[in-house]
Amino acid sequence: MITVGLIGAGYIGPIHLGALVRLGGVRVKTVVDANGELAARAAASYNIERSGTDYRDVVGDPEIDVVHNCTPNKYHFGITREALSEGKHVLSEKPLAMTIAEAEELVELAARKKAVTGIDFCYRYYPVVQEMAARVRRGDAGAVRMVSGSYFQDWLSKETDWSWRLLRSESGESNITADLGSHWFDLVQFTTGLEVREVIGDLASLLPTRKRPKRQVLAFEKVGEVESEEVEVELEDYSAVLFRLSNGAPGSFTTSQTCNGRKSDTEFQIYGSQCSYAWNHKDATQLWIGYRDRPNEVLIENATLQDPSTARYANLPAGHPLGYHDAVYNLFLDYYEAVAAGGREGGGGDGEGGSAGAGGPLPRPTFETGLEEMKILAAVLESHRKRTWARVKG
Amino acid sequence: MITVGLIGAGYIGPIHLGALVRLGGVRVKTVVDANGELAARAAASYNIERSGTDYRDVVGDPEIDVVHNCTPNKYHFGITREALSEGKHVLSEKPLAMTIAEAEELVELAARKKAVTGIDFCYRYYPVVQEMAARVRRGDAGAVRMVSGSYFQDWLSKETDWSWRLLRSESGESNITADLGSHWFDLVQFTTGLEVREVIGDLASLLPTRKRPKRQVLAFEKVGEVESEEVEVELEDYSAVLFRLSNGAPGSFTTSQTCNGRKSDTEFQIYGSQCSYAWNHKDATQLWIGYRDRPNEVLIENATLQDPSTARYANLPAGHPLGYHDAVYNLFLDYYEAVAAGGREGGGGDGEGGSAGAGGPLPRPTFETGLEEMKILAAVLESHRKRTWARVKG
Amino acid sequence: MITVGLIGAGYIGPIHLGALVRLGGVRVKTVVDANGELAARAAASYNIERSGTDYRDVVGDPEIDVVHNCTPNKYHFGITREALSEGKHVLSEKPLAMTIAEAEELVELAARKKAVTGIDFCYRYYPVVQEMAARVRRGDAGAVRMVSGSYFQDWLSKETDWSWRLLRSESGESNITADLGSHWFDLVQFTTGLEVREVIGDLASLLPTRKRPKRQVLAFEKVGEVESEEVEVELEDYSAVLFRLSNGAPGSFTTSQTCNGRKSDTEFQIYGSQCSYAWNHKDATQLWIGYRDRPNEVLIENATLQDPSTARYANLPAGHPLGYHDAVYNLFLDYYEAVAAGGREGGGGDGEGGSAGAGGPLPRPTFETGLEEMKILAAVLESHRKRTWARVKG
Amino acid sequence: MITVGLIGAGYIGPIHLGALVRLGGVRVKTVVDANGELAARAAASYNIERSGTDYRDVVGDPEIDVVHNCTPNKYHFGITREALSEGKHVLSEKPLAMTIAEAEELVELAARKKAVTGIDFCYRYYPVVQEMAARVRRGDAGAVRMVSGSYFQDWLSKETDWSWRLLRSESGESNITADLGSHWFDLVQFTTGLEVREVIGDLASLLPTRKRPKRQVLAFEKVGEVESEEVEVELEDYSAVLFRLSNGAPGSFTTSQTCNGRKSDTEFQIYGSQCSYAWNHKDATQLWIGYRDRPNEVLIENATLQDPSTARYANLPAGHPLGYHDAVYNLFLDYYEAVAAGGREGGGGDGEGGSAGAGGPLPRPTFETGLEEMKILAAVLESHRKRTWARVKG
Repeated sequence: MITVGLIGAGYIGPIHLGALVRLGGVRVKTVVDANGELAARAAASYNIERSGTDYRDVVGDPEIDVVHNCTPNKYHFGITREALSEGKHVLSEKPLAMTIAEAEELVELAARKKAVTGIDFCYRYYPVVQEMAARVRRGDAGAVRMVSGSYFQDWLSKETDWSWRLLRSESGESNITADLGSHWFDLVQFTTGLEVREVIGDLASLLPTRKRPKRQVLAFEKVGEVESEEVEVELEDYSAVLFRLSNGAPGSFTTSQTCNGRKSDTEFQIYGSQCSYAWNHKDATQLWIGYRDRPNEVLIENATLQDPSTARYANLPAGHPLGYHDAVYNLFLDYYEAVAAGGREGGGGDGEGGSAGAGGPLPRPTFETGLEEMKILAAVLESHRKRTWARVKG
Repeated sequence: MITVGLIGAGYIGPIHLGALVRLGGVRVKTVVDANGELAARAAASYNIERSGTDYRDVVGDPEIDVVHNCTPNKYHFGITREALSEGKHVLSEKPLAMTIAEAEELVELAARKKAVTGIDFCYRYYPVVQEMAARVRRGDAGAVRMVSGSYFQDWLSKETDWSWRLLRSESGESNITADLGSHWFDLVQFTTGLEVREVIGDLASLLPTRKRPKRQVLAFEKVGEVESEEVEVELEDYSAVLFRLSNGAPGSFTTSQTCNGRKSDTEFQIYGSQCSYAWNHKDATQLWIGYRDRPNEVLIENATLQDPSTARYANLPAGHPLGYHDAVYNLFLDYYEAVAAGGREGGGGDGEGGSAGAGGPLPRPTFETGLEEMKILAAVLESHRKRTWARVKG
Repeated sequence: MITVGLIGAGYIGPIHLGALVRLGGVRVKTVVDANGELAARAAASYNIERSGTDYRDVVGDPEIDVVHNCTPNKYHFGITREALSEGKHVLSEKPLAMTIAEAEELVELAARKKAVTGIDFCYRYYPVVQEMAARVRRGDAGAVRMVSGSYFQDWLSKETDWSWRLLRSESGESNITADLGSHWFDLVQFTTGLEVREVIGDLASLLPTRKRPKRQVLAFEKVGEVESEEVEVELEDYSAVLFRLSNGAPGSFTTSQTCNGRKSDTEFQIYGSQCSYAWNHKDATQLWIGYRDRPNEVLIENATLQDPSTARYANLPAGHPLGYHDAVYNLFLDYYEAVAAGGREGGGGDGEGGSAGAGGPLPRPTFETGLEEMKILAAVLESHRKRTWARVKG
Repeated sequence: MITVGLIGAGYIGPIHLGALVRLGGVRVKTVVDANGELAARAAASYNIERSGTDYRDVVGDPEIDVVHNCTPNKYHFGITREALSEGKHVLSEKPLAMTIAEAEELVELAARKKAVTGIDFCYRYYPVVQEMAARVRRGDAGAVRMVSGSYFQDWLSKETDWSWRLLRSESGESNITADLGSHWFDLVQFTTGLEVREVIGDLASLLPTRKRPKRQVLAFEKVGEVESEEVEVELEDYSAVLFRLSNGAPGSFTTSQTCNGRKSDTEFQIYGSQCSYAWNHKDATQLWIGYRDRPNEVLIENATLQDPSTARYANLPAGHPLGYHDAVYNLFLDYYEAVAAGGREGGGGDGEGGSAGAGGPLPRPTFETGLEEMKILAAVLESHRKRTWARVKG
């Protein structure tokens, strides 16, 4: 039995718990949150024996093997470092850290400690996204010629919408390019097996001022009822990026959180010399496959039609839709198999690319993946400042 | 803590377990199956302490409060009766029993024992199906004028496809009208609050003969490799029904398991004097709303846009799809609240219709629901035999 | 140059004209309508030399080769008979006549006069509907096992909606079963090459009373402004039919004009032993193809991917949608080729079925087609009255 | 009666003719093409009296009022200039000319000659695209915050695909940015009433070499049967552009002709402070409308639900789809009304923007529109060369 402690019981923490309890051989022992009430409620909801407010009750507990770091962004680095130092395996929410230097330190430390690392890029774990990766990597698409896509949401579409994500002190140098862009670029790198090499970004705060509540909005209050002050927004709520991949193929990506009617609409398309693939979170169970000389196809998640390496993720009879909870579950399934195997997955490290070849297992998202995403982000920010193309640091 | 025992670890049993472990205050103590290996594997997958082969270890265990009956159809009645007799609450897979007499006995026994009963009509627990029910019941659609829909699958589309469901000895008098039709009629009765009163059905075995394997096909074998014999099929794989609801509104329903390319495509449409609603399992997160004088709408599951009575089922930020596992989870959520409340839900029994009015909680599927479905089935079979309309027994 | 006269310049007449002017070798000489203003306006809109109010100016004009009969239903028979007697070829709107006896007389007369006949079942002329027919007839679907579908509109969804179609004196014995049902059954018989043999129908007036305007509503008035009287509706606005085809395959069809939000949504599905086909007027350019063992396909109208016999109808580069006007144009294209060939199409008469084999041209809709539709209608009406199955007269 | 001559009977010429014959008060007298056979065939197909090979038979014919210039790009300027000089009104295919200087000369000459000009940006004439423009311009969307979209085709996806569009001598400095980009930017400028001001483009030849046939491929030959030579491609088949509109709103656009499975998939989205709009050529009859606080809408082309200024373009009963031919027809309808009015449309010239206010008629595409598109193109090409942002010349 692998023993788990989870730190951070806000939005994403309980989603981790809901997936963890479905895993055989894994037991969550402790959940902590600075807000003890949140922690206690989460513990009760998932029959977890212990809750508390001090993250050291997790990272310092010798019985705990794996730490889930679900804290706010600015605490990721410190807590993860401490957990690694204590010999824990760590699955962190993204971003891995606030700076590249921090992220590099974590990657290095994890390697030294032989920790099995994971980062929650869960979108790649929808069954047909895995299938797209398997097919592209085994060559079905031919040469990847271009990619394109977007990620649109609307929860920041009003002037009265406010989030800590818009603050530099909480988010670092970027709001949406970091938050949604990292998911999107991970999808592209994962499915194509290619890397983003050069970028030019155009960032904007489409709502340059917002009304910030003067105190926290309580559960029973409406946003409008709390006194607010008009503030200039520090970070971008719009980002568009042109880029080139490691094989020279171009790409484009646009994202905003101000798009009325778009709830969490990530979509991306891979155009290859033989066929095309497209996926849209709004129809998460479907993979579109485009052909020149025959009708296009729609593959609905289906273990019997998928590549052997991805069939396990489509674990319901065809036609019974899997959802977001299942994507997180699938990611954990892979992660805990790696933990159980003592990190001896595939044939040499859990890094992106690595040994993942035709037929073999597809790579898991690890701390190295998290670091790569931060390097892409840094290049986008630089290109925006300089108004010309920038290279992603190798 | 409510203690649960589950009987039957085949296909649907583990799906129950995956939902049960996500419920706070509920603990699965025992899982049993005639096939002990299956039971043991299920127990290991969900960290359940005990497994075994004898259902009496569940129904006879005084510590167990609730029994999940996931056995094959022909065992439903006997085990459920025994569990009720032992004072257990029971959540049964459908059908409730093999005959109306049996089903009536169970309903009566449960009432006498004050058992909280449930039956797994899980399709109604997709968040937007709940929303459709809330809206129709609060009057948004105006008068319900007609309903229509279908349920198509393809897992019996080949002559080499075989299932115990095609055998009278295993299924009773009907294969698909019972299996898929009951789900569909439940959706209609649940969302409209109306009852099916008159029917005329047309049943057929579209594949009149099939190749039945002479022995069980093992996991590593292909169907074609096992010697088979050609047999005449006893039960229908196609069913179409015209019907009238309790308010006089007509309806139509068609179902088959031989429809190549349709995996589990249930869909139904309610046409009212004010607007229309449609839902399709293939796009399970979306509710279509049709208007005469303004653009049609598509409501994606969204707690902030749904009726207060259904918002709880849309428990992810809008745009993050829920799936089949979540529908089952939602049903269990309601069921275990009723168990925790000692069966004192709503204002008078957990029956269909009951006190469920505008704004109040929507009715849960109970043994009475299961009985109603069996009566509809009996009328369809009668109408098919007599080639004219038949009334559903009151 | 083939010379044409058109009778009836209401709704459908100008649509005929818009297609006729796109045909090479065809000239419309005269358009007439009891309402001379309508006729004059139609003539002006399409640069037609002559207009008038007397249909005999068309049927009696020796220069005119072809008559388009676009008059109200009750005039179809008389005018068509007169035109045939005068030696004209006739393309009639549906229904062919008001009674089977009349329709049979027209079929016989046309045969004697060697007239090239046509009837406007234009839905079958969407390019991918033709493609569906070509594929099913050449065997791609395998044996046709079942068909299903519906035709929903909403222009009669309100009590204040009124139409002459609801009057027995104008429509005959049926409103919607005749009007929309005939289109739908034509689609099924055309695409499958099979005939409807047995039926049981359930008809209803979902709005049993309506407010009938006391005088014609003028163009600038709103319906509500004209005084109306409440009348009992004579004919059905809902119809559902179960049926059996000539190969024994069952089917189901539902139609209503009271379905809020459905504008002209015809859809039908053919399930075969090898694959399935589905088409929906709402996405008229797309043919859905369903498979058991590989991803489903969506074929968008495309000359290079279609059967040689249907490629001509997809006369734009792929991705440029054709519409309703083009379906009518395609029907006329076929009809006027037959006229130009002196009725010597295919290899023996323009009847349904006939010589249309693999690779050959698909059958056009002729007066025989119109007669067949009337026989199906008669059987549906009989089955509804008798509440049991009825046979379609051979 | 307005008399028309058409020059160029290749692909697009006959499409013009098919729309022209549906216009009342308009007569096509002459069609010419360097290839006399093409001209004769087009004339026969549309009952046109005269055909020939010399464009001067059109521009020099005193009876002809309007010239349609459907020649290859490199002849646009010369023929249009001559037609204008002869006092003709001119409707030209895009691009207006090969250089900005030429285009400016044409705009000026047309103004001096008081010619009514038109250019075939027909995508804006789908009924719901007009509706989108009417709604955005009357303020329904609130402030336009961002736009995004793409235009993907696949007819150049293979190495054996060849087109004169890839040659600098035939196309000028750009293939796809000019060809498809101009349509797309026209859609954005038309619907928003805003202008593209700054751009940065990334262009690429995704197939850097292609096999060019050594002689023309004849109708009965397959591409592969004609001897070919490998050539380096001169012009881009991929283009991605980030841009800023005149109100500061950012946008992004991606296009390629190498996208397997994408036939002519233009789509664009406008995100406003109040709601969002999206349109996709693949579903050309549908306008998506996105909201934050209520369900999204889908408006299907429908005269009774559209703005009075756009209802005329939805000239079929709702639910009967209009297509590409109808979009061209709608553009011509507007153009010939302007011709009939002697160019006195709106309240001051037929330029973009102009008097087009709330409720008034939406602007038609004129030579000024064609010039604007060429300026956007020039800026994109400059930005690509310099790898930084470039301004569109005012």
